[in-house]
Amino acid sequence: MLLVKAEGARVRQSWCDLLAEFRPGLVARPYDAPGIRVEDATYALAWEPEPGWLASMPKLRVIFSLGAGVDHITRDPSWPRGVPLVRMGGEETGQRMGEYIAWACLTLLRDGRDHAIAQAERRWAYKVGEDTARDLTVGIMGMGTLGAAAVPMLRGLGYGVVGWSRTRKTVEGAESFAGPEELDAFLARSQVLVCLLPSTPETMGIVDAALLAKLPRGASLVNAARGPHVVLPDLLEALDSGQLSGAVLDVFDPEPLPVDSPLWAHPKVTVTPHVASVARRRERARYVADAIAAFEAGGPLPNLYDPERGY
Amino acid sequence: MLLVKAEGARVRQSWCDLLAEFRPGLVARPYDAPGIRVEDATYALAWEPEPGWLASMPKLRVIFSLGAGVDHITRDPSWPRGVPLVRMGGEETGQRMGEYIAWACLTLLRDGRDHAIAQAERRWAYKVGEDTARDLTVGIMGMGTLGAAAVPMLRGLGYGVVGWSRTRKTVEGAESFAGPEELDAFLARSQVLVCLLPSTPETMGIVDAALLAKLPRGASLVNAARGPHVVLPDLLEALDSGQLSGAVLDVFDPEPLPVDSPLWAHPKVTVTPHVASVARRRERARYVADAIAAFEAGGPLPNLYDPERGY
Ligand SMILES: NC(=O)c1ccc[n+]([C@@H]2O[C@H](COP(=O)([O-])OP(=O)(O)OC[C@H]3O[C@@H](n4cnc5c(N)ncnc54)[C@H](OP(=O)(O)O)[C@@H]3O)[C@@H](O)[C@H]2O)c1
Ligand SMILES: NC(=O)c1ccc[n+]([C@@H]2O[C@H](COP(=O)([O-])OP(=O)(O)OC[C@H]3O[C@@H](n4cnc5c(N)ncnc54)[C@H](OP(=O)(O)O)[C@@H]3O)[C@@H](O)[C@H]2O)c1
Repeated sequence: MLLVKAEGARVRQSWCDLLAEFRPGLVARPYDAPGIRVEDATYALAWEPEPGWLASMPKLRVIFSLGAGVDHITRDPSWPRGVPLVRMGGEETGQRMGEYIAWACLTLLRDGRDHAIAQAERRWAYKVGEDTARDLTVGIMGMGTLGAAAVPMLRGLGYGVVGWSRTRKTVEGAESFAGPEELDAFLARSQVLVCLLPSTPETMGIVDAALLAKLPRGASLVNAARGPHVVLPDLLEALDSGQLSGAVLDVFDPEPLPVDSPLWAHPKVTVTPHVASVARRRERARYVADAIAAFEAGGPLPNLYDPERGY
Repeated sequence: MLLVKAEGARVRQSWCDLLAEFRPGLVARPYDAPGIRVEDATYALAWEPEPGWLASMPKLRVIFSLGAGVDHITRDPSWPRGVPLVRMGGEETGQRMGEYIAWACLTLLRDGRDHAIAQAERRWAYKVGEDTARDLTVGIMGMGTLGAAAVPMLRGLGYGVVGWSRTRKTVEGAESFAGPEELDAFLARSQVLVCLLPSTPETMGIVDAALLAKLPRGASLVNAARGPHVVLPDLLEALDSGQLSGAVLDVFDPEPLPVDSPLWAHPKVTVTPHVASVARRRERARYVADAIAAFEAGGPLPNLYDPERGY
C-alpha cells in the first residue's frame, strides 16, 4: 500500500487515481482515508509530512518526495534514514525550471520589474539597457539536474553560462567550476547568479554579503532553490548599494512570504510564489509509478537522496 | 554632408560623433546646427522627420531610418520616393527582438502578469499553468529579418514555431506559411501569435475580431511591430470572452499610450513602452557608416525599402 500526503483532499485522491492508472494493482490511498492502517504502508509519497508520520511505518520500503527538494522530509528528526528516499525527477521538471530561469534572466535583462511598476502607475517610461544577452554570463550555482536543463535554453538566448558544483561536470555549453576552492573564480564570472543548490547545512545562508561582494558590480540574482540560501538583510544591502542591480526570487524563508516583507514593494525585486518548477501531477505520478515498477523488478531507484552528501 | 534628425540635441551630436568615428571624412551634422544649409545634404539619417524636410534636399542620395520600421518616414506625403530608403538592420536588432519575443512568450506562459499584480498587492497567489513551452506553437506573423532571429531562441526554449509571410521562407525550425490563402491554416496553429509585420496599407488593422476568432481558443498575443496592426476594441473583446488568454504589447496607436487607455490596468495585458528592439547607437552608427562605405564604393545598399511592397 502507498500512502499519499499532499495538500488538499481532492489533490490526494487525484494522486491515488493517477498512480492506480499507471500501475494497476498498486493500492494507493490518501493518508487520512477512513480505516487506513498506517503501519501497513510499504510506500509513502509525501509533501511536508508531519514529524513522526514516516517513522510510524515499520514496513516502509521507499519514500517518494512530491518535489525535487527533500528538505521538507529530512527536517523531521525522526525520518527513517534507512529507507531509500527518492527526489522527484523527470524531464518536465527540468523543462519548467529552465523556462523559469530563462524568464527570470530576461526579466532582469529587459527591465521587467521597471515596466511592471510603470504599468501599475500608467506611466510611459522608455528605458533601454546597454547589454544584450550576448554580453552577459549566467552563473548557475548548483549545476545539477535542473541547472543542466537550463543551460541550452540560456545559450540559445545568447548568454554565456558557467556552473558551480561539488564535483566537476561536463555540460555542453557551460564551463564547470567545482568545490569551495573554485567558488571565487566562478563568482567573478557570474553577471547573473542563479541559485539552484539543494538545501543542506553547507549551503544554508551561502548567498551572504561576502559572496555578493565577489560578483561583478551591478550583477543580478535569481533564487529558485530554497529561501534560506539567501541572507535577506545582505541581499537588501547589496541592492541598495548598487552591488546588485536586481533580483528575481521564487523561494523565501518563511513561505508564504509575509505581507510585511520589504521584498514585495522593492523596486529592484521580482517576487513569484514558489512556482519555478512544478511538473504536472500526471507526469509526476508516472515518474513514481515507473520507479516502483523498476524497484519491484529488482532494478535501481532513480534520483536517490544520499545521506552522506545531504541531498 | 549627412544630416541627423533624432530626438534630443545630445543624442544628435552623439550620432554625428559616432558616424565621424566609423567613417572619417564624412561630415555629419545635427539638422538644427547653426548655419546648416539643408539643400547641401547628400545623406539624411532620420526618426520622425517633419513633413517636407526630406523633400527640401535636392542633392539627397540615401535616406537612413533610425529604426527598422520606415512608416515614420513614408507617412510624409512629400517624401522623395526616388531616393533609396535604408531600414535599420544589423545583428543586434535581431538579437534584441528575439530576447523580447522570448521574454513575452515566457511571460504569457508563466503568468508574469498575474505575478506582477499579486506582488503589487503583497499577495502570495500560487498559480501553476498546465502547459510547458513544449506543448505550444508560436506563430510569427511577419517572418522577416526580426522574426527569423527569434526562431532559434524560441526553439531552444521548447516551443514549436510556424511563420507567415508574403513569400515562402526556409527558416530552420519554423514551418512556413505564405500569402493570404495560407493565413487561416497558420492562425489555426498559432497558440501564441506574434506580430512582426511591417506597417503597410495591407497590414493595418490585420489583428481584428475575424483574425482573432481563427486562433485556437485561449491563445495569446504579442505585438512588437506597430500599434495600428491591432484593432483595440476587438482585442479587448477577445480577452474578455476568453478567446484570448493574454497579451504582451510593446507598440500602440498613439504612442505614448494615453493615461486613460484601458490597457494599462487590464489584468491580462502586459504593457512595455516601445522597447522591444533598440540597438545600441554605436552599432547602428556602424551599420550606417558601413552602408555609406559600400554605396560610395559602388556596391548595393542593404535592407532597402521597396515602394512596390510598401516596406
Ligand atoms: N522553486 C521551485 O519550484 C523548485 C522546484 C524544484 C527544485 N527546486 C530546488 O532546486 C534544487 C536543485 O534541484 P536539482 O534537482 O537540480 O538538484 P541536484 O540534481 O541534486 O543538483 C544539486 C547541485 O548542487 C550541487 N551542490 C550541492 N551541494 C553543494 C556544495 N556544498 N557545493 C557546491 N555544489 C553543491 C551538486 O553538486 P554535485 O552534483 O557535484 O554533487 C549538484 O550539482 C532543489 O534542491 C530544490 O531546492 C526548486
Ligand atoms: N517594437 C520595436 O521596438 C520594433 C523594433 C524594430 C522593428 N519593429 C517592427 O518590426 C517590423 C518587422 O521588422 P523586420 O526588420 O523583421 O521587417 P522585414 O524583414 O521587412 O520583415 C517583414 C515580414 O513581413 C512579411 N509581410 C509584409 N507584408 C506582408 C503581407 N501583406 N502579408 C504577409 N506577410 C507580409 C514579409 O514577407 P516577405 O519577406 O515575404 O516579403 C516579411 O517576412 C518592422 O516593420 C517594425 O514595425 C519594432
